Amino acid sequence: MSQSINVALIGATGNVGEALVELLEEREFPVQDLHLLASSESAGQSLSFRGRQVRVRSLEAFDFSQVQLAFFAAGVEVTRACHERVLAAGCSLIDLSAALPLEQAPCVLPELGVEGLPALSKPWCVSAPTPSAVACALVLAALKPALQPQRLQLTAMLSISTLGRSGVQELARQTAELLNARPLEPRTVDRQVAFNLLAQVGEVDEQGHSQLERRLAVEVQQLLGMDALPVAATCALAPVFFGDSLALGVQADAEIDLAAVQQLLEAAQGIELVEAGDYPTAVGDAVGQDQLYVGRVRHGVSDPRQLNLWIASDNVRKGAALNALQIAELLIKHYL
Amino acid sequence: MSQSINVALIGATGNVGEALVELLEEREFPVQDLHLLASSESAGQSLSFRGRQVRVRSLEAFDFSQVQLAFFAAGVEVTRACHERVLAAGCSLIDLSAALPLEQAPCVLPELGVEGLPALSKPWCVSAPTPSAVACALVLAALKPALQPQRLQLTAMLSISTLGRSGVQELARQTAELLNARPLEPRTVDRQVAFNLLAQVGEVDEQGHSQLERRLAVEVQQLLGMDALPVAATCALAPVFFGDSLALGVQADAEIDLAAVQQLLEAAQGIELVEAGDYPTAVGDAVGQDQLYVGRVRHGVSDPRQLNLWIASDNVRKGAALNALQIAELLIKHYL
Repeated sequence: MSQSINVALIGATGNVGEALVELLEEREFPVQDLHLLASSESAGQSLSFRGRQVRVRSLEAFDFSQVQLAFFAAGVEVTRACHERVLAAGCSLIDLSAALPLEQAPCVLPELGVEGLPALSKPWCVSAPTPSAVACALVLAALKPALQPQRLQLTAMLSISTLGRSGVQELARQTAELLNARPLEPRTVDRQVAFNLLAQVGEVDEQGHSQLERRLAVEVQQLLGMDALPVAATCALAPVFFGDSLALGVQADAEIDLAAVQQLLEAAQGIELVEAGDYPTAVGDAVGQDQLYVGRVRHGVSDPRQLNLWIASDNVRKGAALNALQIAELLIKHYL
Repeated sequence: MSQSINVALIGATGNVGEALVELLEEREFPVQDLHLLASSESAGQSLSFRGRQVRVRSLEAFDFSQVQLAFFAAGVEVTRACHERVLAAGCSLIDLSAALPLEQAPCVLPELGVEGLPALSKPWCVSAPTPSAVACALVLAALKPALQPQRLQLTAMLSISTLGRSGVQELARQTAELLNARPLEPRTVDRQVAFNLLAQVGEVDEQGHSQLERRLAVEVQQLLGMDALPVAATCALAPVFFGDSLALGVQADAEIDLAAVQQLLEAAQGIELVEAGDYPTAVGDAVGQDQLYVGRVRHGVSDPRQLNLWIASDNVRKGAALNALQIAELLIKHYL
């Protein structure tokens, strides 16, 4: 990776955008010029990069032929409105917004290495999986030698930062109002999320699934190369600022060898297995870290063909920003 | 139920004990004398019952031959130390502490009516199921005509009141300290629970299950009359004061008829089904209510043989106090 490239970052002022800027510097990503972009309302702010202030400019007027790679860390609408312009300018893109269909922008798990890469031609157009899909796929990919999953059941208790910066502000505001015995007026979310759990993220479709749950299921299937794997997923919102907690159940058709599972998790890249009897938490362990934390590895209470485990992951860092950057590093190393 | 009985309540000063006293009055339970009991440290306090103050007395010196029924709403140790003395005095007991083995104290779901009652001789000794088992069994019993479960997977996000009054105080204290940017010193729980999720309740055994998870599994099996049903359960603690949230997955061996499921839930006693597209929350719907709230009724994302739903329940009221009282009402009606 001696060659440097020009990079655009769309959605630079959001949680994930800021984390990307930090990580581009921290990991010495071979950036020559970094262009920070946002919608015209957010343009004008500045972020620090390599000791200097970089101004956030308006996305609308930007000429993408100046850059070789664009990260999309803004909302779904921004990606949908703008990705064709980017690709037409010959610029590759990594979408973190889950806006593009997986047929057009296949998802990549960097830990799978070159063998896990889909066939791509330049300019590439790939998806960074949603944070919960990263967590599930990373764990299940590590377990492949010991465990052929027959079906998955995931309950993902997502932090409020899943909704971006406004979600974080909403939880802080609601909590302060309740502790001060003031009447609660929900704004960003439509009900009380402080000291409460919300059973879904956004609207659900006619079958009762949220877009996030559908996306997560197909991403995990694609990343594992198991398109027919039955997946059940519940994505809920928890009153937690940063860091997702996932209860994952994996059904197999024979008794699962827990010792083998533990050995594979211990050896896996990107995973920290906590000691038996202990358990990881999102806030205490995962937030700010580059690994997922896994614990509570066990059978079902009365079901040895079921594997249960708990995953704690930083949804902004490992789940999104770091993962997207690792995807970029892998692609640049092998295709530039 | 014209006949009145003398009742003892052990653990009268706890969350569940207080709720029991309120409900004994509210439901016009046929109490002649109510004896409130607690360990000697808590004795001396008073609770209001039918317009007068009833003093909480020490459990140690109490003569149980004065009463016909005792509710055990204190800790496991209290029940274990004292239940033999109660039964020897000819007093029936309902255990809310999950201290007694189910062979000795079978659990009862009042909604199942007389047919659901185990064979009992006087003095009865029965268990009120743990709050999550009440919720699961009530839903699954209602669905029996449409759905023969092949396996269950439950993720129960329990409120901190699961740990009693000290848990509630701990969450309030931790939250206030964090919002005031003071250093956090966990006390009742061993780590940060404010704005965080804890993956287990109490210690786990060598197989990795908590006592609560094991108990829940066998209670659900017993209540459904399906001793061999494979159950996987994760009981976690959420930063919620009151009200449990449960993500339940039920596996069947054929495609599940969602319309039939919804009809059965709508007709079921003790269950309030929310409209499709909406979802219930513990704090917004369930707390203070006599019913469970059920929503998000759907298949697995890519698994029509899986039923997924979300249950919100008041763990202190419907999950514990009300349920125990309904058990008592049923037993008195049919056996007194």
